[in-house]
Amino acid sequence: MSFEYLTNIPLDKARADYLNLLRENGFAAATEVIPVWDACGRVTAHAVYAHICAPHYAASAMDGVAVSAKDTFGATETTPVTLRADQYTVLDTGDPIPEGCDAVIMVEDIVKNGDGTVTIHAAAAPWQHIRQIGEDICAGEMILPSHVSVSPSAIGAMIAGGVLEVEVIRRPVVGIIPTGDEIIPPCTDPKPGDILEFNGSIFSAMVRQWGAEARVYPIVPDKFDEIKNMVAKAAAECDMVILNAGSSAGREDYSVKVIRELGEVLYHGIAMKPGKPAILGRQGAIPILGVPGYPVSGIIVVEQLLKPLIDHWLKAPAAPRQYAKAILTRPVVSGLKYQEFVRVRMGYVGDRLMASPLSRGSGVVSSFMKADGILEVPQGLEGYEAGAEVDVRLLSPAEKLKNTVVVIGSHDPLLDELGDMLHVADSELFMSSSHVGSMGGIMAIRRGEAHAAGCHLLNTENGVYNISFIKKYFPKGGVKLIRCVGRQQGLMVAKGNPLNIRKFADIANPGIRYVNRQKGSGTRVLTDYLCKQENLDTAAIYGYDREELTHTSVAAQIVSGSADAGMGIYSAAKLYDLDFIPICIEEYDLIVPDHAWDTPQVQQLISTLKSDEFKEKILTMGGYTVENPGEVIAVE
Amino acid sequence: MSFEYLTNIPLDKARADYLNLLRENGFAAATEVIPVWDACGRVTAHAVYAHICAPHYAASAMDGVAVSAKDTFGATETTPVTLRADQYTVLDTGDPIPEGCDAVIMVEDIVKNGDGTVTIHAAAAPWQHIRQIGEDICAGEMILPSHVSVSPSAIGAMIAGGVLEVEVIRRPVVGIIPTGDEIIPPCTDPKPGDILEFNGSIFSAMVRQWGAEARVYPIVPDKFDEIKNMVAKAAAECDMVILNAGSSAGREDYSVKVIRELGEVLYHGIAMKPGKPAILGRQGAIPILGVPGYPVSGIIVVEQLLKPLIDHWLKAPAAPRQYAKAILTRPVVSGLKYQEFVRVRMGYVGDRLMASPLSRGSGVVSSFMKADGILEVPQGLEGYEAGAEVDVRLLSPAEKLKNTVVVIGSHDPLLDELGDMLHVADSELFMSSSHVGSMGGIMAIRRGEAHAAGCHLLNTENGVYNISFIKKYFPKGGVKLIRCVGRQQGLMVAKGNPLNIRKFADIANPGIRYVNRQKGSGTRVLTDYLCKQENLDTAAIYGYDREELTHTSVAAQIVSGSADAGMGIYSAAKLYDLDFIPICIEEYDLIVPDHAWDTPQVQQLISTLKSDEFKEKILTMGGYTVENPGEVIAVE
Repeated sequence: MSFEYLTNIPLDKARADYLNLLRENGFAAATEVIPVWDACGRVTAHAVYAHICAPHYAASAMDGVAVSAKDTFGATETTPVTLRADQYTVLDTGDPIPEGCDAVIMVEDIVKNGDGTVTIHAAAAPWQHIRQIGEDICAGEMILPSHVSVSPSAIGAMIAGGVLEVEVIRRPVVGIIPTGDEIIPPCTDPKPGDILEFNGSIFSAMVRQWGAEARVYPIVPDKFDEIKNMVAKAAAECDMVILNAGSSAGREDYSVKVIRELGEVLYHGIAMKPGKPAILGRQGAIPILGVPGYPVSGIIVVEQLLKPLIDHWLKAPAAPRQYAKAILTRPVVSGLKYQEFVRVRMGYVGDRLMASPLSRGSGVVSSFMKADGILEVPQGLEGYEAGAEVDVRLLSPAEKLKNTVVVIGSHDPLLDELGDMLHVADSELFMSSSHVGSMGGIMAIRRGEAHAAGCHLLNTENGVYNISFIKKYFPKGGVKLIRCVGRQQGLMVAKGNPLNIRKFADIANPGIRYVNRQKGSGTRVLTDYLCKQENLDTAAIYGYDREELTHTSVAAQIVSGSADAGMGIYSAAKLYDLDFIPICIEEYDLIVPDHAWDTPQVQQLISTLKSDEFKEKILTMGGYTVENPGEVIAVE
Repeated sequence: MSFEYLTNIPLDKARADYLNLLRENGFAAATEVIPVWDACGRVTAHAVYAHICAPHYAASAMDGVAVSAKDTFGATETTPVTLRADQYTVLDTGDPIPEGCDAVIMVEDIVKNGDGTVTIHAAAAPWQHIRQIGEDICAGEMILPSHVSVSPSAIGAMIAGGVLEVEVIRRPVVGIIPTGDEIIPPCTDPKPGDILEFNGSIFSAMVRQWGAEARVYPIVPDKFDEIKNMVAKAAAECDMVILNAGSSAGREDYSVKVIRELGEVLYHGIAMKPGKPAILGRQGAIPILGVPGYPVSGIIVVEQLLKPLIDHWLKAPAAPRQYAKAILTRPVVSGLKYQEFVRVRMGYVGDRLMASPLSRGSGVVSSFMKADGILEVPQGLEGYEAGAEVDVRLLSPAEKLKNTVVVIGSHDPLLDELGDMLHVADSELFMSSSHVGSMGGIMAIRRGEAHAAGCHLLNTENGVYNISFIKKYFPKGGVKLIRCVGRQQGLMVAKGNPLNIRKFADIANPGIRYVNRQKGSGTRVLTDYLCKQENLDTAAIYGYDREELTHTSVAAQIVSGSADAGMGIYSAAKLYDLDFIPICIEEYDLIVPDHAWDTPQVQQLISTLKSDEFKEKILTMGGYTVENPGEVIAVE
């Protein structure tokens, strides 16, 4: 196939042009008639009118007796009136009013005389305690207008009005076609090169949340005719089609050609990132949307370009997007030529809503899962500086952001466990943690961006952790140092330890390829210190200048065979099934600013740290020691 | 059965005590294992950990060639490097990195030489364009904590992490038992005394919205043993039981006794209105909630006392309730002894959010359907005055309230049609109309509470409609009078006109029972005027002092046989299938304050009034004349 350059249509224009083109070609909602009791949340196709009145007969509103009001005139405490048995009828709430009666007297206001007569001490007003015909709903009256969502009480009103079926907008059916030779159905033991098909599950869940139905077709290999046949089948069976992957302009990317042969391609290439290679196509009135294969790109494209079609179909105004002003914790650099969607984690620290950009890799689906909001950088803007106030579209409810403990700094898997226990203990509290290393955590606390920072910084002069850094970076105080865990640091090596590494100094052995952590990380400070203690010449250690940003990326280098050893914590070695040579126990603590100390989320965090459950969990994980977690460490 | 006095437990205490009692008796969520692709919106039972890394192999992030980075060192624009065929491997995005390679060069940066070699003009950095193992998710890493809702992207992350099944909180099953001899399944032709069973459909829709499943049992007659057997069956099959009706202390109300025999009654009688006779009971860990039969009472009881149990079960924090400050348009009188829930219609007029109390009848389910909010009057407060600023719990989104045209005044069914057309024309706009008569509408406009008021007030001096009232009540101007329709007024009489009423003066005939409208209503003004014209002695007209508040309630009196004739509009007669003797055409216009004129909702209202579609609709309805609707009528 020939290489084809993509267009760069602004997203708003693309979205509007697409809907207009489709409408001109007959794109519109279908309707269906369903029982009213199944109609909750569905959208009325037309106004609904009552068939009968509710109540449909004059009914007693009380337990008592029905009478003719004029028989009771003149009754008072001093001049009671006695009614003959043929002058009243006993009835319960809801019973019809007998012919000739026009009032109900409550059972409490009647004296039974034993001879069948009753005595009353007050006159009845005409129509008292009677629910008139049509009090609730009149036959012929409009119960619901067109194009509104049916509520539970509206279901009751329709049934009361004798309406048992209602014509509603049919949910549109979205056909989803995964393609690609390398794509395989979900499994737990894929072979190298296999890519698990999960975009179909993501898109299905998304469109169902928006009120559509999803139909996922079998995976189609990268063969033009097979793709074309499947798209034609889906377009015949569905109201909208997502053709997943094959939307870029590479060698096996047949999507554009398939859609052109079946119908029309409006645009190929939208000024958005991620998602640029999206294809806006159609066959007749059926939209066919070519969606990139990377999950994050796909999610953004489906949300930005398919959801408006579903909203239009369902005739319900789209729920307004919630935006909030937030402070960026790190700069965001964007391109002038496209609108960019940056996922951010968020949380309130004091009154300030902080937003930390997440990984922008379009293959990193977990970043979308962790996102509390989307920063939409407009086309024509180069981005924002750290500390800038930006409008963020919220994915998490504001309440959640107010109840989130924001942890920034050195990462450790125990933070995930701590967050889990915190939320289990109080379902309204959440934890958000970002991994920027120990020094990054200290800086975040100084800037007022976090409730807590994980920190394990060794003073190489005296071998004491964290305290001297607190004194240096918070000379006026204002923070507490909270004891957390002792953490086993050591050398991660390949499974089976093929190079027979036994002690720290072995990293200087000939033939050993070392992989290091970045300067400023707690582990790097420790490694430098150990080298000094052992009198190792770091320049002579192969790979000592090769820096990775996390424990897990060091482990990944070793697993993939490109390095033989690296310092890291036990849990990282365990995650990657590496061998581990313990070197020392370091202190991993939390720094908490005084202004956050009394917040419910921090207090719950401390309670959780102090709990027996936390200790048990940590010891089960292995590689940790625990002694008085949650204790405030004296810094002076 | 003996009469039993109900307790009056404060609602908050009742709710808390009930949950505590149930928890002590083992009330807790059950879990189930389901495929992850079905888990959207479900709540995790435990933390979910990845089984495999994602990517699970080192993968190319680009289309290009895989190389060993060291083979490329030194390559620049001026000193290109040529690689032999055995020094590179062609690959596509997602392909695994071959053994011995540690970098990918993009296809655009390669020159193919035709002899199998390729030339490059820049060195490759180690690990460039390679997605490392675990870049997205590491095996063993926590993907989701406990007790959180599963999002579409979390489904993707779980599948990518090799997790194909997830343990989630099972949706609780709520059994709903309708009882009552008079209750029949929904139908379109009930007989007098039949009450259509629709509470079960309302409660089902409510609990489904909250994440539970509903199971409605067959209607049980008012027989103690049958009710007891059905409750026992439901308690064995469900997680929670609603026993509907029979919760008051009347003669056929077996609920309390049934629950006591099966288990325990905690409270019978809660300090709430509506809903006081609610019963909080249980059998073992299964809550059995006795709910009053009137639908509005039932809705409030289920929302206030069952929803907290469902929220607790689902371990998801209840979505925070949205409150807004609003101005009451009418006084609300409440009792000191209970917390009251008053349904209100709402809309913004200018910057002020107005709240108009709806019917407080607990049988009026349509009032719940029309409600935009609930005014919660605390126990111990006697209510609020008109004009008071109150906190209202919102049922409608704030966006809808901002886009609602608020019409207060004389009612006419054409307003429903107008509101329908308005919303169909622009799905973001809505109409809310309240019926307080023509003078009530004028007063609402004067107080700044409405965007428009329906008005048909006759100047009996000159026979001209509306203009003199505008001059009188808006002496400084500030409003526009908008032509709407000519409306057929006439006498409504029983079907077949058995008393042979032919003209207006016949209402004074002997044996005719007249039913009138309230003073201040446009129709009453007209009726008084007609009497004067015909020289009728109103004191001699039987029932002239019997006043009803709406056209339809006048019609209801005639349908029920308690009156023979009443003035009203054609459409009311048609709604109730009455005969109609036309008397005159009146002008039904809209008053719009200048400050509302330029709002999108009023402008759309005027456009709709002017549309051909409106004219056609109105003429189809019958009883109207249309001439230039939407035109501004000169008042001077």
